Amino acid sequence: MSQYEKVTPELIEALKAAAPGHVSVGGDINEDFSHDEMPIYGKAMPEVVVEATSTEEVAAVMKLCNEHHVPVIPRGAGTGLTGGAVAIHGGVVLSTTKMNKILSYDTENMVVRVQAGVLLNDLAEDAARQGFLYPPDPGEKFATLGGNVSTNAGGMRAVKYGATRDYVRAMTVVLPTGEIVHLGASVSKTSSGYSLLNLMVGSEGTLGVITELTLKLIPAPKEVISLVVLYENLEDCIATVPKLMRSGLQPQALEFMEREIVRLSEAYLGKSTFPQTFEGSDVNAYLLVTFDGDNEDQLTEIIEQASEIVLEAGALDVLVADTPQLKKDAWAARSTFLEAIEANTKLLDESDVVVPVNEIANYVKFINTIAADYDFEVKSFGHAGDGNLHIYNCSNDMELEEFERQVADFMKRAYAKATELGGQISGEHGIGHGKLDYLAQMVGPVNMRLMEGIKQVFDPNMILNPGKVCYKL
Amino acid sequence: MSQYEKVTPELIEALKAAAPGHVSVGGDINEDFSHDEMPIYGKAMPEVVVEATSTEEVAAVMKLCNEHHVPVIPRGAGTGLTGGAVAIHGGVVLSTTKMNKILSYDTENMVVRVQAGVLLNDLAEDAARQGFLYPPDPGEKFATLGGNVSTNAGGMRAVKYGATRDYVRAMTVVLPTGEIVHLGASVSKTSSGYSLLNLMVGSEGTLGVITELTLKLIPAPKEVISLVVLYENLEDCIATVPKLMRSGLQPQALEFMEREIVRLSEAYLGKSTFPQTFEGSDVNAYLLVTFDGDNEDQLTEIIEQASEIVLEAGALDVLVADTPQLKKDAWAARSTFLEAIEANTKLLDESDVVVPVNEIANYVKFINTIAADYDFEVKSFGHAGDGNLHIYNCSNDMELEEFERQVADFMKRAYAKATELGGQISGEHGIGHGKLDYLAQMVGPVNMRLMEGIKQVFDPNMILNPGKVCYKL
Repeated sequence: MSQYEKVTPELIEALKAAAPGHVSVGGDINEDFSHDEMPIYGKAMPEVVVEATSTEEVAAVMKLCNEHHVPVIPRGAGTGLTGGAVAIHGGVVLSTTKMNKILSYDTENMVVRVQAGVLLNDLAEDAARQGFLYPPDPGEKFATLGGNVSTNAGGMRAVKYGATRDYVRAMTVVLPTGEIVHLGASVSKTSSGYSLLNLMVGSEGTLGVITELTLKLIPAPKEVISLVVLYENLEDCIATVPKLMRSGLQPQALEFMEREIVRLSEAYLGKSTFPQTFEGSDVNAYLLVTFDGDNEDQLTEIIEQASEIVLEAGALDVLVADTPQLKKDAWAARSTFLEAIEANTKLLDESDVVVPVNEIANYVKFINTIAADYDFEVKSFGHAGDGNLHIYNCSNDMELEEFERQVADFMKRAYAKATELGGQISGEHGIGHGKLDYLAQMVGPVNMRLMEGIKQVFDPNMILNPGKVCYKL
Repeated sequence: MSQYEKVTPELIEALKAAAPGHVSVGGDINEDFSHDEMPIYGKAMPEVVVEATSTEEVAAVMKLCNEHHVPVIPRGAGTGLTGGAVAIHGGVVLSTTKMNKILSYDTENMVVRVQAGVLLNDLAEDAARQGFLYPPDPGEKFATLGGNVSTNAGGMRAVKYGATRDYVRAMTVVLPTGEIVHLGASVSKTSSGYSLLNLMVGSEGTLGVITELTLKLIPAPKEVISLVVLYENLEDCIATVPKLMRSGLQPQALEFMEREIVRLSEAYLGKSTFPQTFEGSDVNAYLLVTFDGDNEDQLTEIIEQASEIVLEAGALDVLVADTPQLKKDAWAARSTFLEAIEANTKLLDESDVVVPVNEIANYVKFINTIAADYDFEVKSFGHAGDGNLHIYNCSNDMELEEFERQVADFMKRAYAKATELGGQISGEHGIGHGKLDYLAQMVGPVNMRLMEGIKQVFDPNMILNPGKVCYKL
């Protein structure tokens, strides 16, 4: 017998009274609400969808569902990759996408207050107009900020600027009980009790529903420039990374790419940007590096120093993407990897490990070796500057069941190796539903007991996003 | 009836077997273990002191005390300011100061692994010899790193580099049950379950005993220079701060000082460094600013731009501390404030509020106004770049009881105002025993319930550092 109740007609009426005009039921629910961007972790239609427009509506909905023991699944734009926003135990999907207002800038303290459903892209563009940069820069620009905070999303610029966690100053959270709490403040440092704020960051909608955020901004750097560095092989490419990090030149972004994935992406875009050969040698790996600074002279000097470092370390050549078009093309190719893979693949799964920077080459070699044991193709690329790799399992001809069986075996080995090298199983995508068992394997029973205990403190009836992160029925 | 047991002769024998040669009892205990640096929050001799030398010893001691329901109070160098390391409910003080080894540097991933009892100063000097900077820089250089992490210590350089939290990559923790857990990894980003690591940071030894840390380092900046900026009044001084922060010049440190405290500190040091007048005007406030960079040219330019900004904003003059001696003297005066106050004061208490940067002037004005209502003197100074103020209540002639009564009234008003302005009650010193009631007032009963619930998950018998942060008997 389930510990949860089904949604009753009475509860639907109460929800409609609590959030008038924002409740969909049964056949009226858009199919999009049944999955995220990685449907291999299951599709499930929720019984009800509430598209809330205020903290108070969220609180009223939570309170009702808590009293009725009905699961609530918070959801941003549904761009997750681990099934985190899927209603695998039924219940109510609570969407924040209608809470999409940028509320106010405080230019003196350099923070912005937003509703949790604001899209990353909208904040990035709006902040730029105010002369600010919001540094977190995950590949998916159309995720909500609430979703970014819930997975501690990283992105390209994490190398220099850190992940989403580093930009969250304060938040309003609706607890599973319906109580509203305020965590943190717009100040930049605090030592005022346990950091419930940092506990919420990365908790993937299992401890509370984030409805409002105060985020740190920085003055926008005046100049930004990218380099494309060509290598004969991946080992040389990766070996450069610690040298660049140690140099003090502070790259903003540092991405490595292997030949095949670049070709796939270029074919998808119909545009060839990265040279395939250099002076008769095949180019088999690329490093895409971005620097920012306050003036052209400073950047010129940085580029000279960086070029020296990479050429000394064995690069074939360095191309400077010094026009906006060149820079756009280079990053477009990088940003399209996932899309290009999706367009070419019927069955897809992904892992998102993070390893120490100096273990990347080792790790990629291991992955390429074990890949031979399986019937799917393995494509990987990643954030060289912070050791975060995205590894895709792709098949167009396997049966689903066999694909899942083989992927499970592959991932078990891939995660074990990452852990052995001092890494973790997810750098930025999170655990959701798809990676819970792997997390338990990595951290062990004591850590899992602590996490589940914390979950119970916030959510005594265990109704918020059940089956995710640390709590499995 | 207390929920705790007294230490029995049998337990003492068991502790001695668990940590041979590291156990002191009764009259053999050094009086230093009865208090921290703010003895107004009570002195209490522990029943036993264990100066542990390994994670395993800590685990054995914790397990025994947990089974016997005896309180354990983790303690670093005892430099706290809120009574956090005082054995107010008796029991065993567990000192980490003998766990003082710097274990290993990983120069490619730029992290260092240390035992928790290593002193900040020792790591800072050792890292410098390796070409690295460990950015957190609290005023007290002889605190342990474990203590710094436990209060999320901030310090001078937090303006540019963030607080201790931002440099903690991984830790080994002994839970109150005696179980040993490993949190985090040397990698720079992760989204692998709830951040128990971030929950431990700032938990003041109430959730577990930190025995080992992996800390992030950065390449040491090649050039560092300080400016002393003179102002006729505090308002002009503080008004400069948001302008400097917004400029993109990224000061490393940004401290404001009022005339009186500078004179007190100079008298204590027997050396006058800061000019008292400028072209016939009295200097009533100072800004001490430090910049770092990679070469002299870059710093020269930064200093020119910074000087322009402060002079336009109403500064009387800018002095460049461009020799090591001048820089040392300027920072020596700043670093001696607390010592100078202590040397001149019989009764002392302190608050450590943090307010938004643009509210500092407002807040200091408020503090100076209410100070008139009390018989003690009020001296304040602080980190202008991050809004963190240290406010001292000093008296040489009041009775203790009356002093405490008046201070309690003063702090209640001071904290209420800080909260009203969007601040928090502690920027870097923490809550300990002395500020628990104020924290409860600030965050309210729901947040306190969550914190106490979390405490219970980690520490079912509530034996670890009882009476601190969120758990009051």
